[in-house]
Amino acid sequence: MSVSILVTLNSNYIRPLKVMLKSLFVQHPAATFDIYLLHSSILPEEIADLEQYTSMEGHRLIAVTVDETYFSDAPVVKHYSKEMYYRILAFRFLPPELDKILYLDPDLMIINDILPLYETDLEDFLFAAAFHDRIPLTEINRLRLKTQELPAYYNSGVLLMNLRLQRETVREKDIFDYVQDNKKWLILPDQDVLNALYSTSIKNIEELRYNYDARFYRYYKLASGGKVDMDYVVRNTSIIHFCGKRKPWNKHYSGSFHSLYKHYEKLAFPSLMR
Amino acid sequence: MSVSILVTLNSNYIRPLKVMLKSLFVQHPAATFDIYLLHSSILPEEIADLEQYTSMEGHRLIAVTVDETYFSDAPVVKHYSKEMYYRILAFRFLPPELDKILYLDPDLMIINDILPLYETDLEDFLFAAAFHDRIPLTEINRLRLKTQELPAYYNSGVLLMNLRLQRETVREKDIFDYVQDNKKWLILPDQDVLNALYSTSIKNIEELRYNYDARFYRYYKLASGGKVDMDYVVRNTSIIHFCGKRKPWNKHYSGSFHSLYKHYEKLAFPSLMR
Repeated sequence: MSVSILVTLNSNYIRPLKVMLKSLFVQHPAATFDIYLLHSSILPEEIADLEQYTSMEGHRLIAVTVDETYFSDAPVVKHYSKEMYYRILAFRFLPPELDKILYLDPDLMIINDILPLYETDLEDFLFAAAFHDRIPLTEINRLRLKTQELPAYYNSGVLLMNLRLQRETVREKDIFDYVQDNKKWLILPDQDVLNALYSTSIKNIEELRYNYDARFYRYYKLASGGKVDMDYVVRNTSIIHFCGKRKPWNKHYSGSFHSLYKHYEKLAFPSLMR
Repeated sequence: MSVSILVTLNSNYIRPLKVMLKSLFVQHPAATFDIYLLHSSILPEEIADLEQYTSMEGHRLIAVTVDETYFSDAPVVKHYSKEMYYRILAFRFLPPELDKILYLDPDLMIINDILPLYETDLEDFLFAAAFHDRIPLTEINRLRLKTQELPAYYNSGVLLMNLRLQRETVREKDIFDYVQDNKKWLILPDQDVLNALYSTSIKNIEELRYNYDARFYRYYKLASGGKVDMDYVVRNTSIIHFCGKRKPWNKHYSGSFHSLYKHYEKLAFPSLMR
């Protein structure tokens, strides 16, 4: 059985994507992955390179090119492109026989098994995601997104999708209408839409295990009374998320997981000149 | 051809030794290592465990038990045991057919190929080692060790040994006499003796490549004008040395290579409870 993974990105993120995929493959020597790449602007030679990269590791890349005219009536938000809709409407473009898929951001590093996450029973939830449990932030977002139903503000970087149920219940019109009415308030449009419209349909997964925010090493350690230290994270966390503007593939980055990220980057690009 | 590695330690360092060896094995999938363990107090069951650990990886552990009566006339320094002599007099206890060996401290992490170091032509030098190039320190040590011939203060954590030449020229008496006369000044006795008596017979090897002091990430980066950043180190440095009192296997450690060290520690102890 192969594991279905979804990524959506533009050409700027191909390099981090390869590092993320490498870390995923290394952690799961016995698994076979189908990587669905939903995109509109990645060049054919870049796709070919990604296909080769993936197949050399024994996995499969399936590029799905989105026809942008599909979104001709969709509202746009500030400087964001219509790619902001790809994640939440991925079910429209994926093969109908897929019942579920795990969406992964390219700014992740996989350091332990993620199959238990993939096997999570989605029941009647549309998604499974982790929220970054800092309460004041949820309060601010509740006001900003003008919704009373915001039990938590979920991070959309790791998103297990119930495609079968989404096909039955998610309507583009609701999404486009919400964006049209609220575009002045949207900061991270796709994540905001996900939370505003569907947060009661999101099953909560463990942040510490599946969406550990790399910026907050000290916070997690302190908040856990010292339990969640580096040893704990390296042994128990499956997904490290390099949230925010500072990214470990950029020069002048520094952070607690810098050396480990560079380790996987070297595995992905063994002989790369900088 | 197998590569000869020397380690000397007591039971307290078995755990970090296994991590160091794991990182060594992982970096050299095509090499076969003979690990000579020079010791006097490690228990038979600990030796058996280390033998199994090493052979399961396809390598060999050769335990060499030192008869402590050999050092009955040797002077002692403060709280140090006579094990301080094992490194510098290892040639007395190793098989006569060994011409050279690479000594490695247990507080190292091997992150790239070390075979170029092993293949270094020792010419007529007794040792090859790196010095940590911070000049004021060398000046202080020159005065402290009362020698005019101290071109640099070498670090003895990574030491390529010319066993053939040592057998011909190194005399215990010189060493014991020096220690007897200077024991008040010795801080790191084995390293001090090595420097005081043999520093002109030490071939210099690249610190950045083979004995990178993990405490000085910022210093190396700054001193190199930014060149020696994390990317550079992970791609070019072969040996990271966790010098000083703070060790990455202890609780409450923090440092630039913490996450990478924990990665290798997990490889060495996949299912260990803490």
